Amino acid sequence: MSAIINDIEIIKAKTTKINEVDFDNLTFGKVFSDHMLECDFKNGSWQAPKIVPYQGITLDPSAKIFHYGQSVFEGMKAYKDANEDVWLFRPLENFKRLNISSKRLAIPELPESYFMEGLKALLEVDKNWIPTKEGSSLYIRPFVFASGKGFHASPADEYKFIICTAPSGAYFSGKVKVLIEETYSRSANGGVGFAKAGGNYAGQFYPTQLAVEKGYQQVIWTDDTNHEYIEEAGAMNIFVRINNTLVTGPTSDRILDGITRKSIIELAKAEGIPVEVRKISVKEVVEAAKNGSLKEMFGAGTAAVISPISGFGYKDADYDLPEIADSYGSKLKKIITDIQTNKSEDPFGWRFKVE
Amino acid sequence: MSAIINDIEIIKAKTTKINEVDFDNLTFGKVFSDHMLECDFKNGSWQAPKIVPYQGITLDPSAKIFHYGQSVFEGMKAYKDANEDVWLFRPLENFKRLNISSKRLAIPELPESYFMEGLKALLEVDKNWIPTKEGSSLYIRPFVFASGKGFHASPADEYKFIICTAPSGAYFSGKVKVLIEETYSRSANGGVGFAKAGGNYAGQFYPTQLAVEKGYQQVIWTDDTNHEYIEEAGAMNIFVRINNTLVTGPTSDRILDGITRKSIIELAKAEGIPVEVRKISVKEVVEAAKNGSLKEMFGAGTAAVISPISGFGYKDADYDLPEIADSYGSKLKKIITDIQTNKSEDPFGWRFKVE
Repeated sequence: MSAIINDIEIIKAKTTKINEVDFDNLTFGKVFSDHMLECDFKNGSWQAPKIVPYQGITLDPSAKIFHYGQSVFEGMKAYKDANEDVWLFRPLENFKRLNISSKRLAIPELPESYFMEGLKALLEVDKNWIPTKEGSSLYIRPFVFASGKGFHASPADEYKFIICTAPSGAYFSGKVKVLIEETYSRSANGGVGFAKAGGNYAGQFYPTQLAVEKGYQQVIWTDDTNHEYIEEAGAMNIFVRINNTLVTGPTSDRILDGITRKSIIELAKAEGIPVEVRKISVKEVVEAAKNGSLKEMFGAGTAAVISPISGFGYKDADYDLPEIADSYGSKLKKIITDIQTNKSEDPFGWRFKVE
Repeated sequence: MSAIINDIEIIKAKTTKINEVDFDNLTFGKVFSDHMLECDFKNGSWQAPKIVPYQGITLDPSAKIFHYGQSVFEGMKAYKDANEDVWLFRPLENFKRLNISSKRLAIPELPESYFMEGLKALLEVDKNWIPTKEGSSLYIRPFVFASGKGFHASPADEYKFIICTAPSGAYFSGKVKVLIEETYSRSANGGVGFAKAGGNYAGQFYPTQLAVEKGYQQVIWTDDTNHEYIEEAGAMNIFVRINNTLVTGPTSDRILDGITRKSIIELAKAEGIPVEVRKISVKEVVEAAKNGSLKEMFGAGTAAVISPISGFGYKDADYDLPEIADSYGSKLKKIITDIQTNKSEDPFGWRFKVE
């Protein structure tokens, strides 16, 4: 069965898997909707995207994604409100960042219409897959990778842009304790740390495994020169509250320009919370924990939304962060999710209606 | 048709593509032999490898290779001598390094027998694909990547180990001029630069494109702190000859422990060439170029063998390196390729007969 939505060709799946899904007990990114968007770059240009059944991708064994890690991705979420209206959050920011990442990875940039119209058509086709239970959403994964062939270590001549979606619950289950890293690093000055490049994530897995063995869930990365400054947590940016001031590190070529991060900064300012965007030294955080001025820490990202951090480890010592009554994290999380899910006004114009 | 070689199951291709190949005009890594080795990690262990026809690999769109760059690889070459004997060069070093890379990328390590016996069986089956023309060889590409599903940013639960081969000529066509990098970086202290991880290569493509636009073929990477010291060229380690001393940088967590590199160091010492393994500053190289003590530079790697560098650029100035009569690079290249191709004695025990 074939149709056209927003000029996008739709090839519908013959059957649906939706009845196999327990929408009351969703985990993160493990079940996938019936369709996906597929778009090929070949002969020097992006071809028209189409919606196809969610299905396997067949590649030559010499496809450069297998050898040279040439890939970038985005993370987004769709929400459905009580009126069955579907909402995205600042989707153009994801589109722009995808192209910023692509440029750094020598991947051809995508036209905006292929991304936006394709995404809207996909959400239209799989609208029934968008969960409505509080705390759940349809996680959206746009990604681009090198499908072109050959063992020469140079950019591919063919790419695939795909969007898959996965009805999902919370990214973290339970409390998040973090380890401030002293040995390993996530990214180099002049490197690709600011990009959502696949290789940035694989490099974090082993140090994160070591942290997990010690009882932490995530690593807080520090600069690779002296491990002196807090950077980000790999899957989220980090906010620190010292007394009543909310502090987060500046973005750089090593740190992802998080969309949740920058939204939180604006929201906090609008709420009258003092916000500082500046380098945060590990020493400052440890001293604040010791003298009681460190009130809370949280991570911010699309998948994690706002995740409170219950404590951190550094140099074999543990520092607890008990929950506090007037938590900035809880307050800001409610404000941002109410905007995202159309439960409140949106003075910033961030909410985007899919229609 | 099925058979067993070295305990490895062989499923033979029904037809051969060998007659389509012009063995007198081979480029690098663009045509592929009839078979490949395939080995799956699932349910917590590596399954028995088998040889199958060279064919497409089908993966779920959520396979972690597409999203998180979890992949490592090796590069090797097979040679066939006048007696039709097949030779590898220090293959156990590649096997060990593959596992060193895998460990850093949180990929399960491979058993030695799967790698070595699998490779030998593959070379036996595709023996006719090994070129004999001088300067050509069968390039061998073992690689491991995450095939397990899911959008959670954590190691996959399934992997594929594959070996493909490609009859190949020279990696570089023509002279190699390099640009000493002042802005971008290849790897971080505490990062994955020492591993042959896919993501290390994708990150180099864009800065290399910028260098190519300026008339260079490769970038010489420098440390990410101050761009003060020469590191490696991404596809090869770098050697510098100052007066009569051959100098190369020490390996580190940012620099690949190249097998050609360490062989060259040993060969040079055996030839009575003074060798220093120490940090080389950009300043030293530029000053040596200016005062005439910089006699030659070359890159060393499996794909590139020894590639003479005809000049370098730094801070908008170009420094030429004319060919010299008693070139260390030419001399060492002849010695190492004679060992590799069984044209000379092998006092080091590096040559490995495939039988």
